[in-house]
Amino acid sequence: MNPAIHAAETLDALRRAAPLVHNITNFVTMNFVANALLSLGASPVMAHAPEEVAEMTGLAGALCLNIGTLTESWVSSMITAGRMANLKRVPVVLDPVGAGATHFRTEMSRKILDAIRVKVVRGNASEVLALDREQGSGGTRGVDSLHSVDEAAQAGKALANRLHTTLAVTGAVDLITDGTRVFRVANGHPLMTRITGAGCVATSLIAAFCAVDPDPVTAAALALACFGLAGERAAATAAGPGTFLVHLLDALHNLTPDDLGREARIEAA
Amino acid sequence: MNPAIHAAETLDALRRAAPLVHNITNFVTMNFVANALLSLGASPVMAHAPEEVAEMTGLAGALCLNIGTLTESWVSSMITAGRMANLKRVPVVLDPVGAGATHFRTEMSRKILDAIRVKVVRGNASEVLALDREQGSGGTRGVDSLHSVDEAAQAGKALANRLHTTLAVTGAVDLITDGTRVFRVANGHPLMTRITGAGCVATSLIAAFCAVDPDPVTAAALALACFGLAGERAAATAAGPGTFLVHLLDALHNLTPDDLGREARIEAA
Amino acid sequence: MNPAIHAAETLDALRRAAPLVHNITNFVTMNFVANALLSLGASPVMAHAPEEVAEMTGLAGALCLNIGTLTESWVSSMITAGRMANLKRVPVVLDPVGAGATHFRTEMSRKILDAIRVKVVRGNASEVLALDREQGSGGTRGVDSLHSVDEAAQAGKALANRLHTTLAVTGAVDLITDGTRVFRVANGHPLMTRITGAGCVATSLIAAFCAVDPDPVTAAALALACFGLAGERAAATAAGPGTFLVHLLDALHNLTPDDLGREARIEAA
Repeated sequence: MNPAIHAAETLDALRRAAPLVHNITNFVTMNFVANALLSLGASPVMAHAPEEVAEMTGLAGALCLNIGTLTESWVSSMITAGRMANLKRVPVVLDPVGAGATHFRTEMSRKILDAIRVKVVRGNASEVLALDREQGSGGTRGVDSLHSVDEAAQAGKALANRLHTTLAVTGAVDLITDGTRVFRVANGHPLMTRITGAGCVATSLIAAFCAVDPDPVTAAALALACFGLAGERAAATAAGPGTFLVHLLDALHNLTPDDLGREARIEAA
Repeated sequence: MNPAIHAAETLDALRRAAPLVHNITNFVTMNFVANALLSLGASPVMAHAPEEVAEMTGLAGALCLNIGTLTESWVSSMITAGRMANLKRVPVVLDPVGAGATHFRTEMSRKILDAIRVKVVRGNASEVLALDREQGSGGTRGVDSLHSVDEAAQAGKALANRLHTTLAVTGAVDLITDGTRVFRVANGHPLMTRITGAGCVATSLIAAFCAVDPDPVTAAALALACFGLAGERAAATAAGPGTFLVHLLDALHNLTPDDLGREARIEAA
Repeated sequence: MNPAIHAAETLDALRRAAPLVHNITNFVTMNFVANALLSLGASPVMAHAPEEVAEMTGLAGALCLNIGTLTESWVSSMITAGRMANLKRVPVVLDPVGAGATHFRTEMSRKILDAIRVKVVRGNASEVLALDREQGSGGTRGVDSLHSVDEAAQAGKALANRLHTTLAVTGAVDLITDGTRVFRVANGHPLMTRITGAGCVATSLIAAFCAVDPDPVTAAALALACFGLAGERAAATAAGPGTFLVHLLDALHNLTPDDLGREARIEAA
């Protein structure tokens, strides 16, 4: 555990603040994301209508954008909300689900990044690499990671600089970089790949931590450690993906700041 | 338990009728609402296309409208369905999720109430108070209750008269009033605030009870007692919000009419 | 167990291939469908934007169409995806949810069947019979089965021939026919009717099996046996619909090819 990261204090602050996290996200995992944010101690809201997204973002502690079941009109609402977030200094987190799998997803992810300032992008290695205009198409196949986290490390640092954002590249070991600092998070469990929405939840928890921690690198590292740790605990009592899902919410709720301070496996690289 | 409410008989009637409840509701909690209605013993259907909503409502025992992830086109479908419901005397229940949080939600809730006759409105105190044009903006912040149920009691009675509907204001103790009678329901558990969709489910269960009980005050009281009681039972064996969610569906399914008759904590106030 | 069906080998092949199943499906059960496909060992993706559906289908091993919360624009995306599937010989499976309940659902189901070649249609007896232009309206009432599986057997065989597809008619005993062969699957449990999305999951599992088995009759029989068997196991430890849902995902994940080979109750009729 890196001493610069005040894990216990930050989780405690999050629970006291219970920040409102405004999600414009996909249909598949909305319910799981909302329950995970509530279990962590944040306050989720989902709203996508053009008439209200800016007003809702103005009330929020963080904005979480996720293109999992994107359409043009939803992306338009994401940008409207993102502009208000930029204006009001509400941190924005982006999950470019499936970037690289279809041209539409790659283009829409880049369009969002061009239109607004995004504090953290969370994706697997394939998705994050697909955001890079200089790299071209890597022939990726969607949400499955085809590049290893290690391969992505140098590319990630350079890409974070080119995109002017912090990248959180999740995998067996997660890599977080703002182009200068690099952290690795080793918490987690393989069962997290056998449920839908683990990535979406990770992104939304990063948004929740960004609402109480101004440093996107430590916010992302703590969110991923917190979620990974909950996954480890859930797996210890799970009999399969069904019980794992249920115990994951219990574990997020029952994780204490002291647990996180003691068991987070975050290292500066 | 108020002797005027035949709790056991009504739940028994609901299970025998298995009424079709047509829901035009939000993306976040649709699945939970459908499973809760099934667990109670009702038959849920979700349909929102303008081409079919009126026909579907014509087949239903109750119509449940919920603006949790509203857009203009969904509200338009809600009004189309509501008009058919009014024509065929199918009871309509409304959940004005987040009214008061954004102008759009407040305006759309009022638009629905102006366009169709709604038998019961279910919300927290903030949401219900936001429906009142005479009160103006109370500076509410969405789905969290900023006003206590007690503060809302007198306002609720007056508001029920002004809106010509029955109000079911949920909180630590629920308050139900048609402007003349007032009932309080004391069943429930704090874990119900740590899951997403408890309010949505409460509203849909009220719709199901309205399909078999012509009195909206007793229908709402019984639905909230039933759901609160299931929450109490689920909490007794839950290790967190995940197991609570799961046990809540089990409890709704296993609750007998006799259980409800014996353990419902409904009082005329 | 019919010796012509190599159950164990096929499930093993599915788990090794982990086929990408592209779902254009309903909002209510999307999450459950995705988790069920993952638990079985397939790789789900949901995408409905007209800009990307054809490209996504081109990457997939099977396309699963489900009209549970249909609108015109979603049906249009289904047909776009279906045309690409036909072009690339990706098998298409259709779930005509609620056909017969509203004219819109009946018409849209028929429109899809007219526009593209569908390998398997999975529905209850009422839904499948509603697809038949020669039979006219049976006065059905949605997703509940009003006709018995036995009544549907002869009609199903004739209808499969008229529609040039394989029909999988689910009920207490499932009936699968391509117009020539008839199989019956006797696995399953009554609790599967007390949760939302059992039909949707059945259809998506058929799509997954179609990705690895070129014979739609055996693919559908194995998928339904697999799901029914998981249901039997889940019911053995469930205390109600909530725990049943959770254990169902665990059971799908834990079911071995040998279990399926030994316990599938498939008979040629």
